[in-house]
Amino acid sequence: MIDLHLIGIGTGNPDHLTRAAEAAMRAADLILLPRKRADTADLMELRQMLCADVLRDATRVVTFDLPERDGDGPYLGAVHDWHTSIATCWADQIARHLPDGGRLALLVWGDPSLYDSSLRIAARLHAGGMAMRVTVVPGITSLQALTAAHTIPFNTLAQSVLVTTGRLLASAGWPPGVDTLAVMLDGGCAFRRLDPAGIDIWWGAYLGMKQEALIAGALTEVSDMIVERRAALRAEHGWIMDTYLLRRADLKP
Amino acid sequence: MIDLHLIGIGTGNPDHLTRAAEAAMRAADLILLPRKRADTADLMELRQMLCADVLRDATRVVTFDLPERDGDGPYLGAVHDWHTSIATCWADQIARHLPDGGRLALLVWGDPSLYDSSLRIAARLHAGGMAMRVTVVPGITSLQALTAAHTIPFNTLAQSVLVTTGRLLASAGWPPGVDTLAVMLDGGCAFRRLDPAGIDIWWGAYLGMKQEALIAGALTEVSDMIVERRAALRAEHGWIMDTYLLRRADLKP
Ligand SMILES: C[S@@+](CC[C@H](N)C(=O)[O-])C[C@H]1O[C@@H](n2cnc3c(N)ncnc32)[C@H](O)[C@@H]1O
Ligand SMILES: C[S@@+](CC[C@H](N)C(=O)[O-])C[C@H]1O[C@@H](n2cnc3c(N)ncnc32)[C@H](O)[C@@H]1O
Repeated sequence: MIDLHLIGIGTGNPDHLTRAAEAAMRAADLILLPRKRADTADLMELRQMLCADVLRDATRVVTFDLPERDGDGPYLGAVHDWHTSIATCWADQIARHLPDGGRLALLVWGDPSLYDSSLRIAARLHAGGMAMRVTVVPGITSLQALTAAHTIPFNTLAQSVLVTTGRLLASAGWPPGVDTLAVMLDGGCAFRRLDPAGIDIWWGAYLGMKQEALIAGALTEVSDMIVERRAALRAEHGWIMDTYLLRRADLKP
Repeated sequence: MIDLHLIGIGTGNPDHLTRAAEAAMRAADLILLPRKRADTADLMELRQMLCADVLRDATRVVTFDLPERDGDGPYLGAVHDWHTSIATCWADQIARHLPDGGRLALLVWGDPSLYDSSLRIAARLHAGGMAMRVTVVPGITSLQALTAAHTIPFNTLAQSVLVTTGRLLASAGWPPGVDTLAVMLDGGCAFRRLDPAGIDIWWGAYLGMKQEALIAGALTEVSDMIVERRAALRAEHGWIMDTYLLRRADLKP
Protein backbone atom coordinates (compact mmCIF):
# COMPACT_ATOMS: atom_id res chain seq x y z
CA MET A 1 0.00 0.00 0.00
CA ILE A 2 1.42 3.36 -1.10
CA ASP A 3 0.37 6.33 1.01
CA LEU A 4 1.06 9.10 -1.50
CA HIS A 5 1.25 12.72 -0.40
CA LEU A 6 1.25 15.41 -3.07
CA ILE A 7 2.75 18.34 -1.25
CA GLY A 8 2.35 21.89 -2.57
CA ILE A 9 5.59 23.74 -1.85
CA GLY A 10 4.80 27.18 -3.28
CA THR A 11 6.66 28.68 -6.21
CA GLY A 12 10.18 29.20 -5.00
CA ASN A 13 9.95 31.12 -1.75
CA PRO A 14 10.73 28.58 1.00
CA ASP A 15 8.79 30.76 3.45
CA HIS A 16 5.62 29.97 1.53
CA LEU A 17 5.81 26.44 2.85
CA THR A 18 2.95 25.61 5.21
CA ARG A 19 3.25 23.80 8.51
CA ALA A 20 1.27 20.93 6.98
CA ALA A 21 3.74 20.71 4.08
CA GLU A 22 6.70 20.61 6.45
CA ALA A 23 5.07 17.92 8.55
CA ALA A 24 4.16 15.85 5.49
CA MET A 25 7.73 16.08 4.16
CA ARG A 26 9.12 14.87 7.48
CA ALA A 27 6.61 12.06 7.80
CA ALA A 28 7.50 10.63 4.38
CA ASP A 29 9.61 7.49 4.03
CA LEU A 30 10.63 8.54 0.54
CA ILE A 31 10.57 11.78 -1.42
CA LEU A 32 10.91 11.44 -5.18
CA LEU A 33 12.41 14.43 -6.98
CA PRO A 34 11.77 14.12 -10.72
CA ARG A 35 14.31 15.87 -12.94
CA LYS A 36 13.02 17.06 -16.31
CA ARG A 37 15.74 17.53 -18.86
CA ALA A 38 14.19 20.82 -19.96
CA ASP A 39 13.95 21.76 -16.31
CA THR A 40 16.71 23.87 -15.00
CA ALA A 41 19.22 23.25 -12.31
CA ASP A 42 17.67 26.20 -10.42
CA LEU A 43 14.36 24.48 -9.78
CA MET A 44 15.95 21.19 -8.82
CA GLU A 45 18.33 23.00 -6.50
CA LEU A 46 15.46 24.81 -4.82
CA ARG A 47 13.74 21.52 -4.05
CA GLN A 48 16.96 20.01 -2.77
CA MET A 49 17.60 22.99 -0.51
CA LEU A 50 14.06 22.70 0.81
CA CYS A 51 14.68 19.02 1.63
CA ALA A 52 18.01 19.80 3.31
CA ASP A 53 16.32 22.53 5.35
CA VAL A 54 13.19 20.65 6.40
CA LEU A 55 14.02 16.97 6.62
CA ARG A 56 15.34 14.93 9.49
CA ASP A 57 17.08 11.58 9.07
CA ALA A 58 13.98 9.45 8.61
CA THR A 59 13.26 10.45 5.01
CA ARG A 60 15.12 9.22 1.94
CA VAL A 61 15.34 11.56 -1.06
CA VAL A 62 15.72 10.02 -4.51
CA THR A 63 16.25 11.95 -7.72
CA PHE A 64 15.22 10.41 -11.03
CA ASP A 65 14.89 11.47 -14.67
CA LEU A 66 11.50 12.19 -16.20
CA PRO A 67 10.79 11.53 -19.85
CA GLU A 68 10.26 14.63 -21.95
CA ARG A 69 7.01 15.51 -23.61
CA ASP A 70 6.89 14.90 -27.34
CA GLY A 71 6.90 18.40 -28.79
CA ASP A 72 5.29 17.34 -32.06
CA GLY A 73 1.82 16.03 -32.75
CA PRO A 74 -1.50 17.23 -31.35
CA TYR A 75 -1.13 18.86 -27.91
CA LEU A 76 -3.61 16.79 -25.88
CA GLY A 77 -2.51 13.49 -27.36
CA ALA A 78 1.12 14.27 -26.60
CA VAL A 79 0.22 15.19 -23.01
CA HIS A 80 -1.69 11.92 -22.50
CA ASP A 81 1.25 9.86 -23.79
CA TRP A 82 3.60 11.85 -21.62
CA HIS A 83 1.49 11.20 -18.51
CA THR A 84 1.54 7.51 -19.30
CA SER A 85 5.33 7.42 -19.47
CA ILE A 86 5.62 9.47 -16.25
CA ALA A 87 3.31 6.99 -14.52
CA THR A 88 5.62 4.19 -15.65
CA CYS A 89 8.62 6.07 -14.23
CA TRP A 90 6.88 6.56 -10.88
CA ALA A 91 5.99 2.88 -10.78
CA ASP A 92 9.63 1.92 -11.44
CA GLN A 93 10.90 4.15 -8.66
CA ILE A 94 8.28 2.86 -6.25
CA ALA A 95 9.12 -0.77 -7.06
CA ARG A 96 12.77 -0.01 -6.47
CA HIS A 97 12.68 2.18 -3.37
CA LEU A 98 9.42 1.30 -1.61
CA PRO A 99 8.86 -2.35 -2.56
CA ASP A 100 6.91 -3.06 0.62
CA GLY A 101 4.82 0.10 0.45
CA GLY A 102 5.03 3.10 2.73
CA ARG A 103 4.68 6.81 2.70
CA LEU A 104 5.74 8.48 -0.54
CA ALA A 105 5.86 12.24 -1.07
CA LEU A 106 6.17 14.37 -4.19
CA LEU A 107 6.99 18.06 -3.92
CA VAL A 108 4.62 19.83 -6.27
CA TRP A 109 5.36 23.35 -7.50
CA GLY A 110 2.69 25.78 -6.25
CA ASP A 111 -0.55 23.96 -5.47
CA PRO A 112 -1.13 20.38 -6.68
CA SER A 113 -4.61 21.27 -7.97
CA LEU A 114 -3.57 24.08 -10.33
CA TYR A 115 -2.31 23.14 -13.81
CA ASP A 116 -0.40 20.19 -12.47
CA SER A 117 -0.61 16.60 -13.61
CA SER A 118 0.41 14.73 -10.43
CA LEU A 119 -3.18 13.88 -9.48
CA ARG A 120 -3.85 12.55 -12.97
CA ILE A 121 -0.69 10.46 -12.95
CA ALA A 122 -1.54 9.06 -9.52
CA ALA A 123 -5.00 8.18 -10.85
CA ARG A 124 -3.35 6.20 -13.66
CA LEU A 125 -1.26 4.16 -11.23
CA HIS A 126 -4.34 3.52 -9.13
CA ALA A 127 -6.35 2.51 -12.20
CA GLY A 128 -3.44 0.27 -13.20
CA GLY A 129 -3.90 -1.69 -9.99
CA MET A 130 -1.48 -0.08 -7.54
CA ALA A 131 -2.87 -0.02 -3.99
CA MET A 132 -2.69 3.67 -3.21
CA ARG A 133 -4.20 6.36 -1.04
CA VAL A 134 -3.69 9.97 -2.14
CA THR A 135 -3.53 13.00 0.14
CA VAL A 136 -3.14 16.56 -1.16
CA VAL A 137 -1.39 19.23 0.88
CA PRO A 138 -2.27 22.64 -0.58
CA GLY A 139 0.48 25.15 -1.41
CA ILE A 140 0.71 28.82 -2.34
CA THR A 141 0.18 29.17 -6.11
CA SER A 142 2.00 31.41 -8.57
CA LEU A 143 -1.22 33.44 -8.90
CA GLN A 144 -1.20 34.16 -5.18
CA ALA A 145 2.49 35.04 -5.34
CA LEU A 146 1.60 37.39 -8.23
CA THR A 147 -1.23 39.25 -6.50
CA ALA A 148 0.73 39.44 -3.24
CA ALA A 149 3.83 40.83 -4.97
CA HIS A 150 1.73 43.51 -6.68
CA THR A 151 -0.51 44.00 -3.56
CA ILE A 152 -3.62 43.75 -5.72
CA PRO A 153 -6.90 41.88 -5.29
CA PHE A 154 -7.45 38.88 -7.56
CA ASN A 155 -11.06 39.88 -8.28
CA THR A 156 -12.78 43.24 -8.47
CA LEU A 157 -15.63 43.74 -6.00
CA ALA A 158 -18.09 40.84 -6.27
CA GLN A 159 -16.96 40.00 -9.84
CA SER A 160 -15.58 36.79 -11.32
CA VAL A 161 -12.13 35.90 -12.61
CA LEU A 162 -11.26 33.54 -15.44
CA VAL A 163 -8.16 31.48 -14.74
CA THR A 164 -6.86 30.50 -18.15
CA THR A 165 -3.82 29.66 -20.28
CA GLY A 166 -1.86 31.56 -22.92
CA ARG A 167 -2.99 29.00 -25.48
CA LEU A 168 -6.68 29.61 -24.75
CA LEU A 169 -6.29 33.38 -24.55
CA ALA A 170 -4.57 33.39 -27.94
CA SER A 171 -7.28 31.24 -29.54
CA ALA A 172 -10.43 32.52 -27.81
CA GLY A 173 -9.59 36.15 -27.00
CA TRP A 174 -11.23 38.01 -24.10
CA PRO A 175 -14.38 36.13 -23.07
CA PRO A 176 -17.57 38.12 -22.47
CA GLY A 177 -18.90 38.85 -18.98
CA VAL A 178 -15.64 38.85 -17.04
CA ASP A 179 -13.43 41.82 -16.18
CA THR A 180 -10.34 39.91 -14.98
CA LEU A 181 -8.24 37.14 -16.54
CA ALA A 182 -5.44 35.31 -14.75
CA VAL A 183 -3.16 33.80 -17.37
CA MET A 184 -0.71 30.95 -16.84
CA LEU A 185 1.32 28.67 -19.10
CA ASP A 186 1.90 31.38 -21.66
CA GLY A 187 5.15 30.90 -23.56
CA GLY A 188 4.18 33.36 -26.26
CA CYS A 189 2.97 36.63 -24.64
CA ALA A 190 -0.61 36.01 -25.79
CA PHE A 191 -1.64 39.41 -24.37
CA ARG A 192 -0.22 40.90 -27.60
CA ARG A 193 -3.18 39.44 -29.49
CA LEU A 194 -5.68 41.59 -27.57
CA ASP A 195 -6.75 45.11 -28.39
CA PRO A 196 -4.85 46.72 -25.48
CA ALA A 197 -7.17 49.72 -25.03
CA GLY A 198 -8.61 49.87 -21.52
CA ILE A 199 -6.69 46.85 -20.22
CA ASP A 200 -4.27 46.89 -17.28
CA ILE A 201 -1.70 44.15 -16.77
CA TRP A 202 0.19 42.95 -13.71
CA TRP A 203 2.99 40.66 -14.83
CA GLY A 204 5.43 38.63 -12.74
CA ALA A 205 8.26 36.21 -13.51
CA TYR A 206 10.23 33.95 -11.13
CA LEU A 207 7.69 34.88 -8.45
CA GLY A 208 8.90 34.13 -4.95
CA MET A 209 12.47 33.56 -6.20
CA LYS A 210 15.52 35.75 -6.00
CA GLN A 211 15.20 36.55 -9.73
CA GLU A 212 11.62 37.88 -9.23
CA ALA A 213 10.66 40.49 -11.84
CA LEU A 214 7.48 42.59 -11.85
CA ILE A 215 5.93 44.98 -14.35
CA ALA A 216 2.50 46.62 -14.08
CA GLY A 217 0.65 49.27 -16.04
CA ALA A 218 -1.65 49.99 -18.94
CA LEU A 219 -1.23 47.32 -21.60
CA THR A 220 -0.87 50.05 -24.22
CA GLU A 221 2.23 51.25 -22.37
CA VAL A 222 3.97 48.19 -20.95
CA SER A 223 3.22 45.45 -23.47
CA ASP A 224 6.47 45.84 -25.45
CA MET A 225 8.44 46.34 -22.27
CA ILE A 226 7.21 42.97 -20.93
CA VAL A 227 7.99 41.20 -24.19
CA GLU A 228 11.55 42.57 -24.20
CA ARG A 229 12.15 42.03 -20.50
CA ARG A 230 10.88 38.47 -20.75
CA ALA A 231 13.20 37.68 -23.66
CA ALA A 232 16.19 39.22 -21.88
CA LEU A 233 15.50 37.37 -18.61
CA ARG A 234 14.98 34.13 -20.44
CA ALA A 235 18.29 34.54 -22.25
CA GLU A 236 20.03 35.46 -19.00
CA HIS A 237 18.71 32.56 -16.88
CA GLY A 238 18.17 29.96 -19.58
CA TRP A 239 14.50 29.50 -18.57
CA ILE A 240 11.54 31.55 -17.40
CA MET A 241 8.20 31.04 -15.67
CA ASP A 242 5.78 33.94 -15.73
CA THR A 243 2.12 34.67 -15.16
CA TYR A 244 -0.08 37.75 -15.31
CA LEU A 245 -3.42 39.28 -14.46
CA LEU A 246 -5.36 41.31 -17.03
CA ARG A 247 -8.13 43.67 -15.98
CA ARG A 248 -10.46 45.87 -18.00
CA ALA A 249 -9.63 49.21 -16.40
CA ASP A 250 -13.05 50.70 -17.14
CA LEU A 251 -14.62 47.98 -15.02
CA LYS A 252 -12.30 48.40 -12.02
CA PRO A 253 -14.06 49.13 -8.72
CA MET B 1 4.22 55.50 9.18
CA ILE B 2 2.10 52.36 9.37
CA ASP B 3 3.73 49.22 8.03
CA LEU B 4 0.61 47.16 7.37
CA HIS B 5 0.82 43.41 6.81
CA LEU B 6 -2.24 41.62 5.50
CA ILE B 7 -1.56 38.05 6.49
CA GLY B 8 -3.44 35.17 4.87
CA ILE B 9 -4.05 32.55 7.55
CA GLY B 10 -5.89 29.87 5.57
CA THR B 11 -9.46 28.88 6.28
CA GLY B 12 -9.42 27.31 9.70
CA ASN B 13 -6.69 24.69 9.66
CA PRO B 14 -3.80 26.15 11.67
CA ASP B 15 -1.42 23.84 9.79
CA HIS B 16 -2.19 25.77 6.60
CA LEU B 17 -0.25 28.69 8.04
CA THR B 18 2.93 29.41 6.08
CA ARG B 19 6.31 30.16 7.58
CA ALA B 20 6.02 33.70 6.16
CA ALA B 21 2.67 34.17 7.91
CA GLU B 22 4.09 33.00 11.24
CA ALA B 23 7.10 35.29 10.90
CA ALA B 24 4.89 38.27 9.95
CA MET B 25 2.62 37.66 12.95
CA ARG B 26 5.60 37.59 15.29
CA ALA B 27 7.18 40.67 13.76
CA ALA B 28 4.02 42.76 14.27
CA ASP B 29 3.76 45.36 17.03
CA LEU B 30 0.00 45.12 16.94
CA ILE B 31 -2.51 42.61 15.58
CA LEU B 32 -6.05 43.88 15.20
CA LEU B 33 -8.78 41.25 15.40
CA PRO B 34 -12.04 42.68 14.09
CA ARG B 35 -15.19 41.12 15.51
CA LYS B 36 -18.24 41.19 13.25
CA ARG B 37 -21.49 40.89 15.11
CA ALA B 38 -22.75 38.41 12.52
CA ASP B 39 -19.49 36.58 12.84
CA THR B 40 -19.47 33.66 15.16
CA ALA B 41 -17.51 33.00 18.25
CA ASP B 42 -15.94 30.04 16.39
CA LEU B 43 -14.06 32.17 13.88
CA MET B 44 -12.89 34.67 16.49
CA GLU B 45 -11.76 31.82 18.71
CA LEU B 46 -9.76 30.28 15.88
CA ARG B 47 -7.87 33.52 15.33
CA GLN B 48 -7.25 33.90 19.05
CA MET B 49 -5.94 30.36 19.31
CA LEU B 50 -3.65 31.03 16.36
CA CYS B 51 -2.29 34.11 18.12
CA ALA B 52 -1.79 32.23 21.37
CA ASP B 53 0.00 29.46 19.50
CA VAL B 54 2.26 31.58 17.30
CA LEU B 55 3.00 34.83 19.13
CA ARG B 56 5.76 35.68 21.55
CA ASP B 57 5.59 38.57 24.01
CA ALA B 58 6.45 41.35 21.59
CA THR B 59 3.06 41.54 19.86
CA ARG B 60 -0.07 43.14 21.30
CA VAL B 61 -3.44 41.71 20.20
CA VAL B 62 -6.45 44.02 20.23
CA THR B 63 -10.02 42.97 19.51
CA PHE B 64 -12.51 45.54 18.26
CA ASP B 65 -16.05 45.61 16.89
CA LEU B 66 -16.69 46.08 13.19
CA PRO B 67 -19.80 47.83 11.90
CA GLU B 68 -22.27 45.60 10.13
CA ARG B 69 -23.10 45.91 6.46
CA ASP B 70 -26.42 47.52 5.72
CA GLY B 71 -28.51 44.63 4.44
CA ASP B 72 -30.92 46.88 2.52
CA GLY B 73 -30.32 49.03 -0.53
CA PRO B 74 -28.37 48.18 -3.65
CA TYR B 75 -25.60 45.67 -3.02
CA LEU B 76 -22.57 47.57 -4.34
CA GLY B 77 -23.58 50.86 -2.72
CA ALA B 78 -24.04 49.14 0.63
CA VAL B 79 -20.62 47.50 0.31
CA HIS B 80 -18.92 50.81 -0.46
CA ASP B 81 -20.52 52.48 2.58
CA TRP B 82 -19.53 49.52 4.68
CA HIS B 83 -15.89 49.72 3.57
CA THR B 84 -15.87 53.41 4.46
CA SER B 85 -17.06 52.74 7.97
CA ILE B 86 -14.57 49.88 8.39
CA ALA B 87 -11.77 52.21 7.28
CA THR B 88 -12.88 54.67 9.97
CA CYS B 89 -12.78 51.89 12.56
CA TRP B 90 -9.25 50.86 11.53
CA ALA B 91 -8.13 54.50 11.71
CA ASP B 92 -9.57 54.80 15.25
CA GLN B 93 -7.78 51.68 16.42
CA ILE B 94 -4.51 52.79 14.83
CA ALA B 95 -4.75 56.25 16.43
CA ARG B 96 -5.38 54.60 19.78
CA HIS B 97 -2.91 51.72 19.77
CA LEU B 98 -0.16 52.74 17.31
CA PRO B 99 -0.14 56.55 17.60
CA ASP B 100 3.54 56.78 16.64
CA GLY B 101 3.27 54.28 13.78
CA GLY B 102 4.73 50.79 13.65
CA ARG B 103 4.03 47.39 12.29
CA LEU B 104 0.35 46.49 12.15
CA ALA B 105 -0.97 43.08 11.11
CA LEU B 106 -4.43 41.86 10.16
CA LEU B 107 -5.18 38.16 9.98
CA VAL B 108 -7.10 37.64 6.77
CA TRP B 109 -9.19 34.52 6.23
CA GLY B 110 -7.80 32.45 3.34
CA ASP B 111 -5.78 34.64 0.97
CA PRO B 112 -6.01 38.45 1.13
CA SER B 113 -6.46 38.71 -2.64
CA LEU B 114 -9.54 36.48 -2.94
CA TYR B 115 -12.96 38.05 -2.25
CA ASP B 116 -11.61 40.05 0.64
CA SER B 117 -11.86 43.79 1.16
CA SER B 118 -8.79 44.44 3.32
CA LEU B 119 -6.70 45.74 0.39
CA ARG B 120 -9.51 48.10 -0.64
CA ILE B 121 -9.93 49.37 2.91
CA ALA B 122 -6.18 49.95 3.23
CA ALA B 123 -6.28 51.87 -0.07
CA ARG B 124 -8.96 54.14 1.41
CA LEU B 125 -6.84 54.95 4.45
CA HIS B 126 -3.90 55.62 2.20
CA ALA B 127 -6.00 57.84 -0.07
CA GLY B 128 -7.27 59.59 3.06
CA GLY B 129 -3.71 60.65 3.85
CA MET B 130 -2.43 57.97 6.20
CA ALA B 131 1.27 57.22 5.65
CA MET B 132 1.18 53.50 4.98
CA ARG B 133 3.07 50.71 3.29
CA VAL B 134 1.15 47.51 2.55
CA THR B 135 2.60 44.00 2.36
CA VAL B 136 0.52 40.94 1.48
CA VAL B 137 1.40 37.51 2.84
CA PRO B 138 -0.46 34.90 0.77
CA GLY B 139 -2.51 32.20 2.48
CA ILE B 140 -4.22 28.95 1.49
CA THR B 141 -7.68 29.75 0.09
CA SER B 142 -10.97 27.94 0.66
CA LEU B 143 -10.82 26.81 -2.99
CA GLN B 144 -7.48 25.10 -2.36
CA ALA B 145 -8.84 23.55 0.82
CA LEU B 146 -11.80 22.32 -1.28
CA THR B 147 -9.78 20.70 -4.06
CA ALA B 148 -7.30 19.22 -1.57
CA ALA B 149 -10.08 17.73 0.58
CA HIS B 150 -11.67 16.12 -2.48
CA THR B 151 -8.24 15.29 -4.03
CA ILE B 152 -9.34 16.75 -7.36
CA PRO B 153 -7.65 19.09 -9.82
CA PHE B 154 -8.98 22.66 -10.00
CA ASN B 155 -8.88 22.67 -13.82
CA THR B 156 -9.27 19.93 -16.39
CA LEU B 157 -6.28 19.39 -18.68
CA ALA B 158 -5.25 22.72 -20.24
CA GLN B 159 -8.73 24.22 -19.72
CA SER B 160 -9.83 27.36 -17.88
CA VAL B 161 -11.81 27.80 -14.67
CA LEU B 162 -14.20 30.60 -13.82
CA VAL B 163 -13.98 31.70 -10.20
CA THR B 164 -17.33 33.28 -9.44
CA THR B 165 -19.99 34.00 -6.82
CA GLY B 166 -23.40 32.53 -6.06
CA ARG B 167 -24.95 35.87 -6.97
CA LEU B 168 -23.36 35.88 -10.45
CA LEU B 169 -24.09 32.20 -11.07
CA ALA B 170 -27.74 32.77 -10.19
CA SER B 171 -28.05 35.78 -12.49
CA ALA B 172 -25.82 34.78 -15.41
CA GLY B 173 -26.06 30.97 -15.45
CA TRP B 174 -23.30 28.79 -16.88
CA PRO B 175 -21.05 30.92 -19.09
CA PRO B 176 -20.01 29.56 -22.50
CA GLY B 177 -16.54 28.21 -23.20
CA VAL B 178 -15.64 27.00 -19.73
CA ASP B 179 -16.04 23.51 -18.26
CA THR B 180 -15.37 24.32 -14.60
CA LEU B 181 -16.82 26.90 -12.20
CA ALA B 182 -15.54 27.54 -8.69
CA VAL B 183 -18.32 29.18 -6.71
CA MET B 184 -17.88 31.20 -3.51
CA LEU B 185 -20.07 33.53 -1.48
CA ASP B 186 -23.22 31.55 -2.21
CA GLY B 187 -25.79 31.84 0.55
CA GLY B 188 -28.58 30.45 -1.61
CA CYS B 189 -27.40 27.24 -3.30
CA ALA B 190 -27.36 28.88 -6.73
CA PHE B 191 -26.47 25.52 -8.32
CA ARG B 192 -30.19 24.69 -8.08
CA ARG B 193 -30.88 27.20 -10.87
CA LEU B 194 -28.82 25.18 -13.39
CA ASP B 195 -30.02 22.33 -15.54
CA PRO B 196 -28.16 19.64 -13.56
CA ALA B 197 -27.72 17.19 -16.46
CA GLY B 198 -24.08 16.40 -17.11
CA ILE B 199 -22.76 18.47 -14.20
CA ASP B 200 -20.67 17.11 -11.31
CA ILE B 201 -20.32 19.00 -8.05
CA TRP B 202 -17.71 18.90 -5.28
CA TRP B 203 -19.05 20.77 -2.25
CA GLY B 204 -17.35 21.58 1.01
CA ALA B 205 -18.32 23.46 4.16
CA TYR B 206 -16.16 24.52 7.13
CA LEU B 207 -13.15 23.45 5.09
CA GLY B 208 -10.05 22.94 7.18
CA MET B 209 -12.08 23.06 10.39
CA LYS B 210 -13.19 20.30 12.69
CA GLN B 211 -16.77 20.64 11.37
CA GLU B 212 -15.59 20.01 7.77
CA ALA B 213 -18.33 18.48 5.60
CA LEU B 214 -17.90 17.18 2.05
CA ILE B 215 -20.33 15.96 -0.60
CA ALA B 216 -19.48 15.06 -4.19
CA GLY B 217 -21.36 13.51 -7.07
CA ALA B 218 -23.59 14.10 -10.06
CA LEU B 219 -25.64 17.24 -9.50
CA THR B 220 -28.78 15.33 -10.46
CA GLU B 221 -28.15 13.03 -7.52
CA VAL B 222 -26.66 15.13 -4.74
CA SER B 223 -28.22 18.56 -5.23
CA ASP B 224 -31.06 18.06 -2.72
CA MET B 225 -28.72 16.31 -0.32
CA ILE B 226 -26.43 19.35 -0.26
CA VAL B 227 -29.33 21.75 0.26
CA GLU B 228 -30.60 19.70 3.22
CA ARG B 229 -27.19 19.07 4.73
CA ARG B 230 -26.33 22.75 4.45
CA ALA B 231 -29.52 23.80 6.23
CA ALA B 232 -29.01 21.23 8.98
CA LEU B 233 -25.36 22.22 9.54
CA ARG B 234 -26.25 25.88 9.55
CA ALA B 235 -28.93 25.29 12.15
CA GLU B 236 -26.57 23.18 14.24
CA HIS B 237 -23.61 25.59 14.24
CA GLY B 238 -25.44 28.90 13.86
CA TRP B 239 -23.38 29.81 10.76
CA ILE B 240 -21.92 28.20 7.67
CA MET B 241 -19.25 28.91 5.04
CA ASP B 242 -19.26 26.72 1.98
CA THR B 243 -17.88 26.65 -1.52
CA TYR B 244 -18.04 24.28 -4.46
CA LEU B 245 -16.65 23.31 -7.83
CA LEU B 246 -18.95 22.50 -10.75
CA ARG B 247 -17.70 20.58 -13.77
CA ARG B 248 -19.41 19.55 -16.98
CA ALA B 249 -18.82 15.82 -16.75
CA ASP B 250 -18.93 15.32 -20.53
CA LEU B 251 -15.93 17.63 -20.83
CA LYS B 252 -13.83 15.95 -18.13
CA PRO B 253 -10.40 14.73 -19.25
C1 LIG C 1 2.52 23.71 -14.92
S1 LIG C 1 1.95 25.21 -14.24
C2 LIG C 1 2.10 24.91 -12.52
C3 LIG C 1 1.39 25.89 -11.65
C4 LIG C 1 1.57 25.61 -10.16
N1 LIG C 1 0.97 24.34 -9.77
C5 LIG C 1 1.00 26.74 -9.31
O1 LIG C 1 0.25 26.44 -8.37
O2 LIG C 1 1.34 27.90 -9.55
C6 LIG C 1 3.30 26.28 -14.61
C7 LIG C 1 2.87 27.73 -14.83
O3 LIG C 1 2.69 28.36 -13.56
C8 LIG C 1 3.18 29.67 -13.59
N2 LIG C 1 4.27 29.77 -12.60
C9 LIG C 1 4.72 28.79 -11.80
N3 LIG C 1 5.69 29.22 -11.00
C10 LIG C 1 5.87 30.53 -11.29
C11 LIG C 1 6.72 31.54 -10.77
N4 LIG C 1 7.58 31.31 -9.77
N5 LIG C 1 6.63 32.78 -11.31
C12 LIG C 1 5.76 33.04 -12.29
N6 LIG C 1 4.93 32.12 -12.81
C13 LIG C 1 4.98 30.88 -12.32
C14 LIG C 1 3.61 29.96 -15.00
O4 LIG C 1 2.54 30.55 -15.68
C15 LIG C 1 3.91 28.58 -15.53
O5 LIG C 1 3.73 28.53 -16.93
C1 LIG D 1 -15.44 36.79 1.90
S1 LIG D 1 -14.94 35.32 1.09
C2 LIG D 1 -13.33 35.13 1.68
C3 LIG D 1 -12.52 34.10 0.94
C4 LIG D 1 -11.13 33.91 1.49
N1 LIG D 1 -10.33 35.12 1.36
C5 LIG D 1 -10.41 32.73 0.84
O1 LIG D 1 -9.25 32.91 0.41
O2 LIG D 1 -10.98 31.64 0.80
C6 LIG D 1 -15.90 34.12 1.98
C7 LIG D 1 -16.30 32.91 1.16
O3 LIG D 1 -15.19 32.04 1.09
C8 LIG D 1 -15.64 30.69 1.17
N2 LIG D 1 -15.04 30.10 2.39
C9 LIG D 1 -14.20 30.72 3.24
N3 LIG D 1 -13.81 29.88 4.21
C10 LIG D 1 -14.40 28.69 3.96
C11 LIG D 1 -14.37 27.42 4.59
N4 LIG D 1 -13.62 27.20 5.69
N5 LIG D 1 -15.10 26.43 4.05
C12 LIG D 1 -15.83 26.63 2.94
N6 LIG D 1 -15.90 27.81 2.31
C13 LIG D 1 -15.19 28.83 2.80
C14 LIG D 1 -17.14 30.72 1.20
O4 LIG D 1 -17.60 30.58 -0.12
C15 LIG D 1 -17.42 32.10 1.73
O5 LIG D 1 -18.67 32.57 1.29
